[in-house]
Amino acid sequence: MIITIINGPNLNLLGNREINIYGDKKFEDYFHDLQSTYQGIDFRFFQSNIEGELIDALQEASRESQGIILNAGGFTHTSVSIADTIAAIHVPVIEVHISNILSREEYRHKSLIAPHCKGSLFGFGLDGYRLAAEALLHILKG
Amino acid sequence: MIITIINGPNLNLLGNREINIYGDKKFEDYFHDLQSTYQGIDFRFFQSNIEGELIDALQEASRESQGIILNAGGFTHTSVSIADTIAAIHVPVIEVHISNILSREEYRHKSLIAPHCKGSLFGFGLDGYRLAAEALLHILKG
Amino acid sequence: MIITIINGPNLNLLGNREINIYGDKKFEDYFHDLQSTYQGIDFRFFQSNIEGELIDALQEASRESQGIILNAGGFTHTSVSIADTIAAIHVPVIEVHISNILSREEYRHKSLIAPHCKGSLFGFGLDGYRLAAEALLHILKG
Amino acid sequence: MIITIINGPNLNLLGNREINIYGDKKFEDYFHDLQSTYQGIDFRFFQSNIEGELIDALQEASRESQGIILNAGGFTHTSVSIADTIAAIHVPVIEVHISNILSREEYRHKSLIAPHCKGSLFGFGLDGYRLAAEALLHILKG
Amino acid sequence: MIITIINGPNLNLLGNREINIYGDKKFEDYFHDLQSTYQGIDFRFFQSNIEGELIDALQEASRESQGIILNAGGFTHTSVSIADTIAAIHVPVIEVHISNILSREEYRHKSLIAPHCKGSLFGFGLDGYRLAAEALLHILKG
Amino acid sequence: MIITIINGPNLNLLGNREINIYGDKKFEDYFHDLQSTYQGIDFRFFQSNIEGELIDALQEASRESQGIILNAGGFTHTSVSIADTIAAIHVPVIEVHISNILSREEYRHKSLIAPHCKGSLFGFGLDGYRLAAEALLHILKG
Amino acid sequence: MIITIINGPNLNLLGNREINIYGDKKFEDYFHDLQSTYQGIDFRFFQSNIEGELIDALQEASRESQGIILNAGGFTHTSVSIADTIAAIHVPVIEVHISNILSREEYRHKSLIAPHCKGSLFGFGLDGYRLAAEALLHILKG
Amino acid sequence: MIITIINGPNLNLLGNREINIYGDKKFEDYFHDLQSTYQGIDFRFFQSNIEGELIDALQEASRESQGIILNAGGFTHTSVSIADTIAAIHVPVIEVHISNILSREEYRHKSLIAPHCKGSLFGFGLDGYRLAAEALLHILKG
Amino acid sequence: MIITIINGPNLNLLGNREINIYGDKKFEDYFHDLQSTYQGIDFRFFQSNIEGELIDALQEASRESQGIILNAGGFTHTSVSIADTIAAIHVPVIEVHISNILSREEYRHKSLIAPHCKGSLFGFGLDGYRLAAEALLHILKG
Amino acid sequence: MIITIINGPNLNLLGNREINIYGDKKFEDYFHDLQSTYQGIDFRFFQSNIEGELIDALQEASRESQGIILNAGGFTHTSVSIADTIAAIHVPVIEVHISNILSREEYRHKSLIAPHCKGSLFGFGLDGYRLAAEALLHILKG
Amino acid sequence: MIITIINGPNLNLLGNREINIYGDKKFEDYFHDLQSTYQGIDFRFFQSNIEGELIDALQEASRESQGIILNAGGFTHTSVSIADTIAAIHVPVIEVHISNILSREEYRHKSLIAPHCKGSLFGFGLDGYRLAAEALLHILKG
Amino acid sequence: MIITIINGPNLNLLGNREINIYGDKKFEDYFHDLQSTYQGIDFRFFQSNIEGELIDALQEASRESQGIILNAGGFTHTSVSIADTIAAIHVPVIEVHISNILSREEYRHKSLIAPHCKGSLFGFGLDGYRLAAEALLHILKG
Repeated sequence: MIITIINGPNLNLLGNREINIYGDKKFEDYFHDLQSTYQGIDFRFFQSNIEGELIDALQEASRESQGIILNAGGFTHTSVSIADTIAAIHVPVIEVHISNILSREEYRHKSLIAPHCKGSLFGFGLDGYRLAAEALLHILKG
Repeated sequence: MIITIINGPNLNLLGNREINIYGDKKFEDYFHDLQSTYQGIDFRFFQSNIEGELIDALQEASRESQGIILNAGGFTHTSVSIADTIAAIHVPVIEVHISNILSREEYRHKSLIAPHCKGSLFGFGLDGYRLAAEALLHILKG
Repeated sequence: MIITIINGPNLNLLGNREINIYGDKKFEDYFHDLQSTYQGIDFRFFQSNIEGELIDALQEASRESQGIILNAGGFTHTSVSIADTIAAIHVPVIEVHISNILSREEYRHKSLIAPHCKGSLFGFGLDGYRLAAEALLHILKG
Repeated sequence: MIITIINGPNLNLLGNREINIYGDKKFEDYFHDLQSTYQGIDFRFFQSNIEGELIDALQEASRESQGIILNAGGFTHTSVSIADTIAAIHVPVIEVHISNILSREEYRHKSLIAPHCKGSLFGFGLDGYRLAAEALLHILKG
Repeated sequence: MIITIINGPNLNLLGNREINIYGDKKFEDYFHDLQSTYQGIDFRFFQSNIEGELIDALQEASRESQGIILNAGGFTHTSVSIADTIAAIHVPVIEVHISNILSREEYRHKSLIAPHCKGSLFGFGLDGYRLAAEALLHILKG
Repeated sequence: MIITIINGPNLNLLGNREINIYGDKKFEDYFHDLQSTYQGIDFRFFQSNIEGELIDALQEASRESQGIILNAGGFTHTSVSIADTIAAIHVPVIEVHISNILSREEYRHKSLIAPHCKGSLFGFGLDGYRLAAEALLHILKG
Repeated sequence: MIITIINGPNLNLLGNREINIYGDKKFEDYFHDLQSTYQGIDFRFFQSNIEGELIDALQEASRESQGIILNAGGFTHTSVSIADTIAAIHVPVIEVHISNILSREEYRHKSLIAPHCKGSLFGFGLDGYRLAAEALLHILKG
Repeated sequence: MIITIINGPNLNLLGNREINIYGDKKFEDYFHDLQSTYQGIDFRFFQSNIEGELIDALQEASRESQGIILNAGGFTHTSVSIADTIAAIHVPVIEVHISNILSREEYRHKSLIAPHCKGSLFGFGLDGYRLAAEALLHILKG
Repeated sequence: MIITIINGPNLNLLGNREINIYGDKKFEDYFHDLQSTYQGIDFRFFQSNIEGELIDALQEASRESQGIILNAGGFTHTSVSIADTIAAIHVPVIEVHISNILSREEYRHKSLIAPHCKGSLFGFGLDGYRLAAEALLHILKG
Repeated sequence: MIITIINGPNLNLLGNREINIYGDKKFEDYFHDLQSTYQGIDFRFFQSNIEGELIDALQEASRESQGIILNAGGFTHTSVSIADTIAAIHVPVIEVHISNILSREEYRHKSLIAPHCKGSLFGFGLDGYRLAAEALLHILKG
Repeated sequence: MIITIINGPNLNLLGNREINIYGDKKFEDYFHDLQSTYQGIDFRFFQSNIEGELIDALQEASRESQGIILNAGGFTHTSVSIADTIAAIHVPVIEVHISNILSREEYRHKSLIAPHCKGSLFGFGLDGYRLAAEALLHILKG
Repeated sequence: MIITIINGPNLNLLGNREINIYGDKKFEDYFHDLQSTYQGIDFRFFQSNIEGELIDALQEASRESQGIILNAGGFTHTSVSIADTIAAIHVPVIEVHISNILSREEYRHKSLIAPHCKGSLFGFGLDGYRLAAEALLHILKG
């Protein structure tokens, strides 16, 4: 079973960026731990700051994975095009945000992407990715 | 370790109510399964259709539990008072919704409660309660 | 045939309350007249100022009546939860308001409940309950 | 006693038009039944697709009828001028809509006409005209 | 002379709840002091987290008191029904808030209740209840 | 010199209609007085309740008059099409309203027509037509 | 094959009206050219400044034509009733505007009619009618 | 008979300021002409760029004049306080604007002052002052 | 102890102005009574119709008084600058309004000033100034 | 003559993506047919999911083509930058959408791009590209 | 060369007022330094808390200076009249704000004045005045 | 000292693009002049039409420069992600726009980026880059 994790803009800065909001762990380290925990799953990982590359990655992942975990970063609130991609592909997508976007600035309360996702998870820190994997396992089994 | 699950209005109808949205399983049956899975946790459960009784239950649970899982149903979108209670108590609260409220009617997109919760989970069906329990375990351990 | 009439907050004050808007007749007296007029129908009546008790009453009435007449008073404009209950039950609900809510304050123009009701009646005074009973009879016969 | 029924745009298509919303009965057939039921009332009927002809008809009906039943169709949501006419005349006007306009598109939720009507009835199908006649009888007797 | 003080949701937590906003004194202690200060007045006190119980209490107090001091807590911003009760009863009601609701979150700036109250007092801490009593004395004397 | 006065919906009721707002004089009587006062001007007059007939009248008047005085009644607030006509023709149009529309209901504060008129006059009663004639004389002389 | 072209308010002024926006050709001349180009099609043409006459024309055209080309002029932005007619009839309707309404005033950006049309064409001058005919031919063939 | 003309901010620049909008005549010259035309009236004139001085002037003029002509300039759109003054005094006030404020920027479409004025005149250039005087004469005579 | 009372625009008209809203007592008379009641306090009083003079007065009062009572009249709803002054000075300011601004026109519901005041009092008539003095005494003692 | 067709995000999925909305034909097949039909035109084609590459392509096409057909997909509703590019270049651009965006979700009703295009075509399926080519031919000839 | 610096309300408090936002330097001291730096320029300085005096000062400065630097303080967000003055005069005006108004409260994000200024500078502290002088020098030279 | 200038979409067209708004000088020529003026600074320059490449460039520049000058072009109004980058990095960023965005279309009045920048400069043409450099020098020295 393949699960692809796709991270959007500025998530390459994790560990350095506003540590009070996003924590002090690099995503690469977390990813290693996650892969260790779920040995039966083949996790893949992609990050880009470019909206269209995320669209390309979603399209590609929809062809080779059974589930996608997406943290679209700031594009969450502005990208009709990423939302269109999720609507167009046939694989369950789980939306994750490290911080609780609903308790931050007003413009972060609206997710254009959420309506097309299977489910959304906000505010659990990096643990949100594990919860999303758990959710995907449950969906794919059921 | 005690975790209290609090369900709001109309969730007593689960299993009968709009099955295409909420599924056909009664919450009591699900709750039994959940308790079996996590034997080290003492799960408690409360449901009411009355906003103020949910406030009472939150206040009480904050004194006797280490974590709260809250599905406030329709009050999610209208209750400043429940939100105030969550802000006032000192125990982590996880918000759960069975359906993906962000892909339903416009008025369900706004959660007054979310800003005061540790994290939010939407759209995972009853499995959302298990994910919330997982999240609480992670928080309480960490 | 059983028809349940459910009245919401402050309707227990009818006859005393703002008589220019709501008239000077107590609901109990009107109810007696209504029962006399339609002898083949078993009318039941419930009033509460508590939102959740109205939800309970709607759930219960849906199990024992063939039709419901609901005047949700001020909750008409604020209660997503009562609207959810009407969507969840399987009995026709007619919405009644004594005054014409569409000619009063702006915030009374929006009924959260109406979209889930079979029909709505505004501005006919207490006679609105009789018209609602007439409408239910027509629906249940047809 | 004379009651005038005035129907607005596209209601001449009843029976052919979007049958799932408006039903499959022509208004002329319904009108015949209604006249038969209330033999003591002289019902008159006027239909036009032209806003100003409805204004003319309302003015004229106010001089020769004791009550008016108005289904202004799409003009309900756009015509300040018809609303002005109802405010200007001295005969009770009951607003009827075949479908429940409050459960349809957002722009149908607002009735410019309702604030000037004695009462409003939405969602009862053609039976709404009978209920309006009942309401007028009650008002004119009382 | 009887003055009834009615407190809404979460005000039973005073002294424990967000002390930087609401202060560290329990309401019961304050109430004792207030009663001592005004010996000629019979103060009564009611608190509930349930909206409808506050409506019941307002209705009852309107029959037995000469004035009411109301802190409706979070219901201030959401309850059309409590506002309707105040409009329906015939006793002066003074609105009190411990914190200055106009300097807090945007959604606290709107009081649905205020338009029906004799006057409103925001931001004076518990001393607001004394000022409200002073105001009632002035009104009832004048 | 020819000046055409065009009156819109419900203005044929002047003298009978809401006398506290519109006064008790019929327009025909006023028109006679106006013609007497300005003997060098050939006043013409047209009234219709039909939006499109007002458009026809404006087009026609633009070919035969030197100035137009328009009271579009309720169409003032809803008719993009009448506004388009005024923009399309080449004769000065003065907008008149008998009542002060800016002190009435919110929806009367917006005139779609005003931006294309030479000037607007609100609230002067029937005397507004004389003032508009004065204004046209000044414009046509200047 | 019959195609009916229906033009709304002020389009009878084409060639005289704001030439920088609408061009200097009369519609009658253009219509003649269009008929010559497509000799296998029987084009019919109707223009009115009266909203209800356009409704009548749409209803009639739906009975005798295979396709309709509609330029509703200013009614595009205000007429729920014309939109209702298009929804009620069973013939493809193409919406045409001579100017690009999306680059003009804000209130011209919203077409109430578009959601019920098969397709919309804005900004191509009179050539838009030919393109609409081309589109209808493609639809009717396919 | 005394009529006071009060001009607000930047109207001291008339004749120099944006001549395409406001014309090239100084107000002092116009005022002289106006006084000459109406010899039976004692016109007084006040101009200030200071909002509060306009309030003082309105209060004073209300004590010594029979009518007031007010061009509040930019304060028209922002001054609740000037509007309050007009509501507080007992002399008819006519609002004048040289340009047609309804065809300019959106924020000029709203006049806070108009609801309290007897009537409003927009777009007639300096001739608007004469029309306002005519209107006052008519009001004071009638 | 010095307390400065600052009154804004049109409050110099108290006793003459809209008596049903503001009462029939002149402020000077009330001020005399107030000074008599609290002999230990040195009350000072300033009124102006000019926004900037109120700013000057606030700045000055902040240097010589221990507390300020401010009724900013119509500037309450429009003056960012007065609000900025209150934020800039270091003395407690109590906001008073004679009428209950929350039950009047919509535009009076928003106070730009309130967020920077220690507390606000609306609707108590002139007695509001005494209550504000009481509040200041409590704050300054505590 | 060179015409460049530029397709935006997710249009590379045509034929697989939501077939009920977008049809089941791949764009490459359609493009081949189009080129065959218009042998005198040299059609060029570019697709990207990256906003900035579309900007680059527009700039480049403006230097080598006589006309551009643009389907910006989801960027239509969000990209000020693509709109800026169209405003900056000197070649006519025709906007095409396969589906009728005006009958879909609210957020698709606004095209940021349209105001800068020569014309817009919505809802004609792939045939829209042919119509756009027809339109360009007409513009370039005329 | 003369450059006039005009400061609005509360800027006379610089050095004392909210030092974390506005810094701890008095403007007079800064002004002295500025004059020393640019010896070829004759800087003039005016400050007032009164909106109308700022209007007077702008008018006067436009007659005697070659450029104006304006910090309108709180009037930036509320004064149509100051904006009108800038539009009316013929000298370049540069808008300066000490703090970055775009990162503060929502109501500070809108500058009514900016559209009429040559350019705007926000957030550079007192150094913003020097940058504005630099900008004016560049404009006046070019 | 290194200062990086980052230009966003369409700024590569400077000198060709809408010259009345953006001027007729190429940025490369300007950049050369700027480098000559400030010989002690090492200016670097990057331009891209791709949002994500600007994010990459900001991240990189934050590691190697002491200050950044950013003209984000059309992304200014739409890019939450670029705003997030500025918030995440630790180097002062100055926002520059060649034109005065506050006097152009409404959608250009909002800068998502400004709240995270040290300061903003609008409307100074290319000279804005020099002023930004001056500002950075002052900040870095101070």
